[in-house]
Amino acid sequence: MKDSVQPVELGVSRRNRVKAAGPRVWIKNEVVRVGLAETLCTYVMMVFGLGSVAQVVTGQGVFGQYLSINLGFGLGVAMGAHVGGKVSGAHMNAAVSFTMCTFGRLGWKMLPLYVFAQLLGSFLAAGTIYGVYYEAIFDYCGGNLTVTGVKATAGIFATYPAPYLSLLAGFTDQVFGTAMLLLCLMALSDQRNKPAAAGCEPVAVGLLVMLIGISLGSNSGYAINPTRDIAPRVFTAIAGWGGDVFRSGNGWWWVPLVAPPIGGVLGAGLYRALVEMHHPPLPEQHAESFPLKKQGNICADI
Amino acid sequence: MKDSVQPVELGVSRRNRVKAAGPRVWIKNEVVRVGLAETLCTYVMMVFGLGSVAQVVTGQGVFGQYLSINLGFGLGVAMGAHVGGKVSGAHMNAAVSFTMCTFGRLGWKMLPLYVFAQLLGSFLAAGTIYGVYYEAIFDYCGGNLTVTGVKATAGIFATYPAPYLSLLAGFTDQVFGTAMLLLCLMALSDQRNKPAAAGCEPVAVGLLVMLIGISLGSNSGYAINPTRDIAPRVFTAIAGWGGDVFRSGNGWWWVPLVAPPIGGVLGAGLYRALVEMHHPPLPEQHAESFPLKKQGNICADI
Amino acid sequence: MKDSVQPVELGVSRRNRVKAAGPRVWIKNEVVRVGLAETLCTYVMMVFGLGSVAQVVTGQGVFGQYLSINLGFGLGVAMGAHVGGKVSGAHMNAAVSFTMCTFGRLGWKMLPLYVFAQLLGSFLAAGTIYGVYYEAIFDYCGGNLTVTGVKATAGIFATYPAPYLSLLAGFTDQVFGTAMLLLCLMALSDQRNKPAAAGCEPVAVGLLVMLIGISLGSNSGYAINPTRDIAPRVFTAIAGWGGDVFRSGNGWWWVPLVAPPIGGVLGAGLYRALVEMHHPPLPEQHAESFPLKKQGNICADI
Amino acid sequence: MKDSVQPVELGVSRRNRVKAAGPRVWIKNEVVRVGLAETLCTYVMMVFGLGSVAQVVTGQGVFGQYLSINLGFGLGVAMGAHVGGKVSGAHMNAAVSFTMCTFGRLGWKMLPLYVFAQLLGSFLAAGTIYGVYYEAIFDYCGGNLTVTGVKATAGIFATYPAPYLSLLAGFTDQVFGTAMLLLCLMALSDQRNKPAAAGCEPVAVGLLVMLIGISLGSNSGYAINPTRDIAPRVFTAIAGWGGDVFRSGNGWWWVPLVAPPIGGVLGAGLYRALVEMHHPPLPEQHAESFPLKKQGNICADI
Repeated sequence: MKDSVQPVELGVSRRNRVKAAGPRVWIKNEVVRVGLAETLCTYVMMVFGLGSVAQVVTGQGVFGQYLSINLGFGLGVAMGAHVGGKVSGAHMNAAVSFTMCTFGRLGWKMLPLYVFAQLLGSFLAAGTIYGVYYEAIFDYCGGNLTVTGVKATAGIFATYPAPYLSLLAGFTDQVFGTAMLLLCLMALSDQRNKPAAAGCEPVAVGLLVMLIGISLGSNSGYAINPTRDIAPRVFTAIAGWGGDVFRSGNGWWWVPLVAPPIGGVLGAGLYRALVEMHHPPLPEQHAESFPLKKQGNICADI
Repeated sequence: MKDSVQPVELGVSRRNRVKAAGPRVWIKNEVVRVGLAETLCTYVMMVFGLGSVAQVVTGQGVFGQYLSINLGFGLGVAMGAHVGGKVSGAHMNAAVSFTMCTFGRLGWKMLPLYVFAQLLGSFLAAGTIYGVYYEAIFDYCGGNLTVTGVKATAGIFATYPAPYLSLLAGFTDQVFGTAMLLLCLMALSDQRNKPAAAGCEPVAVGLLVMLIGISLGSNSGYAINPTRDIAPRVFTAIAGWGGDVFRSGNGWWWVPLVAPPIGGVLGAGLYRALVEMHHPPLPEQHAESFPLKKQGNICADI
Repeated sequence: MKDSVQPVELGVSRRNRVKAAGPRVWIKNEVVRVGLAETLCTYVMMVFGLGSVAQVVTGQGVFGQYLSINLGFGLGVAMGAHVGGKVSGAHMNAAVSFTMCTFGRLGWKMLPLYVFAQLLGSFLAAGTIYGVYYEAIFDYCGGNLTVTGVKATAGIFATYPAPYLSLLAGFTDQVFGTAMLLLCLMALSDQRNKPAAAGCEPVAVGLLVMLIGISLGSNSGYAINPTRDIAPRVFTAIAGWGGDVFRSGNGWWWVPLVAPPIGGVLGAGLYRALVEMHHPPLPEQHAESFPLKKQGNICADI
Repeated sequence: MKDSVQPVELGVSRRNRVKAAGPRVWIKNEVVRVGLAETLCTYVMMVFGLGSVAQVVTGQGVFGQYLSINLGFGLGVAMGAHVGGKVSGAHMNAAVSFTMCTFGRLGWKMLPLYVFAQLLGSFLAAGTIYGVYYEAIFDYCGGNLTVTGVKATAGIFATYPAPYLSLLAGFTDQVFGTAMLLLCLMALSDQRNKPAAAGCEPVAVGLLVMLIGISLGSNSGYAINPTRDIAPRVFTAIAGWGGDVFRSGNGWWWVPLVAPPIGGVLGAGLYRALVEMHHPPLPEQHAESFPLKKQGNICADI
């Protein structure tokens, strides 16, 4: 496998060998590369996030509490960010992708790819967690898959509002939570302010998501992410929880779809309007070291 | 929007375009720039901090415990520090600004701006959390907004002393807590000792605030910050909790205003007197690389 | 060896003294060096991990909860990674070593050494924790060392499945948990994507293991590691728990031996197939800075 | 104050001014400088550590649990390490200083200075926490300061063994806990292996101390530090708890004095014997960048 004398990176050597021979394994098509990475990182994030909820719900207090779920999604986002990394930028969230498009950091023509990849990764993760915790869930609820009630298990997969929450307040909650997410993401990646330390961005973003769970999570489960919420919801509708997953909470399902993109743009816009736009002009020399992000490419900073 | 051929930073390109045409969006006035950034970072910190208290109080043990509040304020400070960053230095605390002025790291004429921005950001955050958790609070307390009693909710916004605490002990508690904050902040930013790693300062400061909550929080809720405490207190007085927010705890309200600036100067002074002043003189060459912090500018280190 | 007058590292000076006199303490043999380091780092990881379980079990809720165990193994892995570090790569897990061999990052002839060192370190750690917590364990269970029941203590040392778990589901659980471990490990060490920050790899891997405990731990105790599980199990069989440690859970003992290596290869392979193989070819110049990992050597990245 | 035109560091300008005039504030004497820094960093660590215990004990479950104490001492060590930093090396622990002397990283003549500074800082911290939590302690125990019983409060200041623990097992526990501390400290500062990232050493050491509390704390409260234990114990004997603080636990008080230095040397020696001594010789060129640590100076790495 490593028959070349020249020092080359491991995964690359195979390409060298087949160069003259036939089709290359390496995928030139950036759309496919980005789509695969975005699918995989979303899958990783969702497996860890949903897994932590499944463990807390079925563990009945013995295997973690609410803070475990905050850690599960927070560190899950961090690991997803390492996996998607520089290839797709690891948005893992259609509200992030939409906001990046709005502010010119991602080409609009890439948006469907990101959303599709996120839906796919999220759906596959829901299925995986259903499989891994199948016996735990059935042991916990006696085989009765319900959306409400003391042994409800639908909340493992999708978010549902607290009983006291009106749709309007829930909508506001989701707009605001996502606004805080994107506001802080903009700051964490603003190279002219005080960004996260190089290489530590994934953990910084993970701490941010954990913080939103700790501070803005109890009203409706902090979806702050359309693709994180709808794909597992559809999965549960198919897998045995039925139409209640759409009816429950006064038809809550559309709120995590519509509110987060609005909130994302508002939050990112607020940071730009109050901080980023007012950075003093760079001296000619320095400007070169902050090159324009390539259109149609991904936001690889975060 | 990105019509220039030369690689330029995103937010800058618009300026280039309008340069010849008319008024620039970019705000030259440093006072306004600093004020906006300080307001926004204080808002971010307070939203996450107060939100974590609201969630713990109204969640009744299901959505986090005291440690969640420590994490909420700690990570909230970290995110605020990323947002205010190098623009305002992200003090988010009048006791920090006052101490920086005392030790010549911030011009006294900038102090009113910082305090005003912090009060504004803090007040707006209190209003936001009141709005976001409005239904949760009313569901929890049955619409009866009280400062004391088993269903008291004023503690979501401002700090109140424990029943056993005398005013003198509470004053000491606030002086001491803020002294520890500033003592450690001085160490975290002392480039000639062992400062926080570059880019990790926000998280280091966040861990410090979390630690103060874990170690010095139970007496009176670790305000250690005049602006963090008074603005939400005034908000609650207006929003329905009434004059009790000032009468409660033997008229506790003035303690978090007066004690923290005293403590901050004492703590920072102690670090300087015992450690910083005794660093050996720098060789001529090195001295150049630790330039004097510009008077009238901000402490961007922390 | 370091016969120069020039400044040399501290621990080296003794060698200088004995140079002319006799046999050198320094061990040239790489097999012994790697074996010693791998044994010690596995020992460190296991002492902290098993210690946290012993403390939670015998502490009866006063000295930590499930999250403490996640932290104990997570931070234990981080400290082990600092100890084994660049010498052995600090696998501490036969599934990691096996996967590294499969993907050419470790020579197959080194595998027995790694497995033996891991078994030895793990066994010694089990003995140490048994000694350190001997009186606590006997006080807790009244001297009755059992594998099942309300005062069971065998779970301090090896993993046992939840009562509801079938062998097939448990096997899947272990394959999947280890797949997630290796998938993320590959991402954390992929220098062409978004790897963990230099010097922070141990903590990043620790957070990953903690996360697996938080998200994928309740089914069967997340062994995800053959050597972590079998050595302490054998120790308990000898030390007084008897043959039940092999009979319990429908003969669970072989699952953490067989499933993790399969899962590790699947997870690492998935990352390679979807992300790593598709990195664009490096320009000639850059390729030099990502040299081929030496065959027969260790994966020192993680 | 800043009358010089040349860019100079803040604290330095005063020296410039008085250079021609009279006695300098700056203390040339390294003994005094090191002593002051070691006292202050020990004070900081102990205030946060003891404060977290005081809060958990008097808070009766509302203001944190055992994990809070682990975080309090862990992060307290991290902050202390930033404060003592490069001036004294921030040992904060006589067992660390003793081990550093044994392995030639600190001159033996410096040991009394370190121990005295640590005792002083530790004693002052105990007094401070007694003052800050005076009303909380008296409210909790009704003014009855006891070492044992349900309302015992002596454990806020010094460590006491669990009821089941024999002196021999307790001695072993303290030897082993300190051995793990020093073993890992050696690894964290071994520049030729995988040390903690530059600037992150304080947090890494803090995580290590937190981990020891999580894994090896329930037997006897993980003193692993003679000065951390004896100074507050003497304080409590004077302040009202009386001679019971020495009689309790079968005369436990001497164990945290004698066992930790033994354990420290064993643990550090084990790391050296199994890992550090076997690092391959440095190429001539590289050797320059790992200069010999100056004898009689302090270990500033950790």
